[in-house]
Amino acid sequence: MKNKIRVVVWGLGSMGSGIAKMVLSKKGFTIVGAIDMDPNKVGKKLYEVLGVKANEDNSCIVTKNAQDVIKKSFADVCLMATASFTKVVFPLIKMAAEAGMDIVTTAEEMSYPRAMDPKLSDDMDRIAKENKISILGTGVNPGFIMDLVAIMLTGVSDTVDSIKATRVNDLACFGKAVMVEQGIGLKPEQFIQGVKDNTVDGHVGFMQSFGMFEEAFNIKFNNIRQEKSPIVTTVPRSTDIVSVEAGEVAGCSQLGYASLGDKVFATMEHPQQIRPELENVDTGDYITIKGVPNLNLQIKPEIPGGIATIAICVNMIPLVMNSEPGLKTMLDLPVPRAIIGDVRNLVK
Amino acid sequence: MKNKIRVVVWGLGSMGSGIAKMVLSKKGFTIVGAIDMDPNKVGKKLYEVLGVKANEDNSCIVTKNAQDVIKKSFADVCLMATASFTKVVFPLIKMAAEAGMDIVTTAEEMSYPRAMDPKLSDDMDRIAKENKISILGTGVNPGFIMDLVAIMLTGVSDTVDSIKATRVNDLACFGKAVMVEQGIGLKPEQFIQGVKDNTVDGHVGFMQSFGMFEEAFNIKFNNIRQEKSPIVTTVPRSTDIVSVEAGEVAGCSQLGYASLGDKVFATMEHPQQIRPELENVDTGDYITIKGVPNLNLQIKPEIPGGIATIAICVNMIPLVMNSEPGLKTMLDLPVPRAIIGDVRNLVK
Repeated sequence: MKNKIRVVVWGLGSMGSGIAKMVLSKKGFTIVGAIDMDPNKVGKKLYEVLGVKANEDNSCIVTKNAQDVIKKSFADVCLMATASFTKVVFPLIKMAAEAGMDIVTTAEEMSYPRAMDPKLSDDMDRIAKENKISILGTGVNPGFIMDLVAIMLTGVSDTVDSIKATRVNDLACFGKAVMVEQGIGLKPEQFIQGVKDNTVDGHVGFMQSFGMFEEAFNIKFNNIRQEKSPIVTTVPRSTDIVSVEAGEVAGCSQLGYASLGDKVFATMEHPQQIRPELENVDTGDYITIKGVPNLNLQIKPEIPGGIATIAICVNMIPLVMNSEPGLKTMLDLPVPRAIIGDVRNLVK
Repeated sequence: MKNKIRVVVWGLGSMGSGIAKMVLSKKGFTIVGAIDMDPNKVGKKLYEVLGVKANEDNSCIVTKNAQDVIKKSFADVCLMATASFTKVVFPLIKMAAEAGMDIVTTAEEMSYPRAMDPKLSDDMDRIAKENKISILGTGVNPGFIMDLVAIMLTGVSDTVDSIKATRVNDLACFGKAVMVEQGIGLKPEQFIQGVKDNTVDGHVGFMQSFGMFEEAFNIKFNNIRQEKSPIVTTVPRSTDIVSVEAGEVAGCSQLGYASLGDKVFATMEHPQQIRPELENVDTGDYITIKGVPNLNLQIKPEIPGGIATIAICVNMIPLVMNSEPGLKTMLDLPVPRAIIGDVRNLVK
């Protein structure tokens, strides 16, 4: 049997911890390094931080010093769940790439980094090729439901006039970073100000999803616009992380439109909130393709965001390891699929 | 601008004619050869057979002699829509491969030829590599909705306990070959006898879809069973091709089960019939993944079979042309996507 696939997990927040647990639940992986800045986690054994039973695959000590574990020949793969923006994760990616690790990151902008950072994307592609590794950003969205699945559905289209993707989802499973990004717990006027001064990011992903459309269809949108508005709750809503009173913001409703000429080709609707069931909001994912043929897809309830992002990051590992070196997107690789059984059998 | 992509269409039945028309509707293709056995088509110009306006891309003469057009340097791609079975299309594939053409075929068994013909699959892979071309079998099903889409959906799964794919569809758009394969127009007792003596094939695809599951998940089913039963109509139903009286067979209901140990892992339900709306049968595609998370996908009405098979064959051309040489399946290639704009921009 081949050696276990050696993984470093960089970032042990909600996503990173979930990724670490899922990796440890699969046969053929071992976690050899874990990096986090949280003083409550640093210095502990990984299994303590994750709250799982100790074994040889989860007993590394969490470090805040990346260079302790991001070093040549130390690991095969780096799973990175630290931040949303390419500019922020770029130095981390460069370091892991130069240590010869394939990289999968949850950073939303990295699902299609050319949308915002074409120059850094060229750099990452070059660094990946020089070090014979591959780099992929993915997640449930961007990376899957509002872009990849919509694109895949057009595979059975003769002609496509327009694409609409709607995702009505629950954010309750996410950590503090997402709550802040979405403006959850703010007063409505604070939210509106936050959108103006970029302290409320809302969903980071439409530009990346639209970028994937442009590449997949070899088109160039001449106009892209986005709107973000607060979802103000009429009832108290709370999660482990945040409590929101009636009249405060429980989520962010985001709309996106991308046009070819004077016609909107792609529409995105993405109201995200904590605990939508408390106001009887049905969650779901919906994709509508107008063209020949018309196609209407729905997934109800919605693909759950947290676990799906964790899962797709882990499930893509063998496909990333098998890929030609370079900066990759979900458009470049074969279709994602669950890991069942020993992951080593999936790596060429 | 690069030269147009030169296409030979082999088979001008319902699927092949549709493929030819769709190819001609896209920028950057030219059809340089068309092969069919039908004396009503042979010797005519392609545009006459298709009923479209003449131009430089559709004016080749339909031939019954493959060697007239399946020859070195004559075309870039061969689109083959002649038969369902690997053994039947193998000699045609070999000929086109040796002429240096990339190949996309509608042959259902070719969507996963290893399921029935591992030896021929090895041969095709070797021939493809020797001739530096790629071979792909695809279609809406097998090739997309009951296998690839289900597999892709598990990309967001932590664990998968079972997969169920249901396709309730209308066969009215298909040609005579499909009507015969499905036993449409037979008396119920003739249908049952036809299943026994293999003159009624039903849906050719479950073995291929199950084979794709085995490869995608690196599992081996220890038991696969199929059931085929007649859908007997209570009202007259007719299409351009066939007329069915009450009490006769309007379709084939097919079930498939694939087990791991004593547990059914994958279930397929596929009632296919002409004009289901005449008995108020709702059509649709449904995929249910049980596991973590549970996932429920539906596409209603169902992805229309004829146009979708035509479209996916054409849409896969650039991905097949860009692929490394070899025998490929939909599991090996990037996700399908519509061709919008000039196809030459999609070919590396």
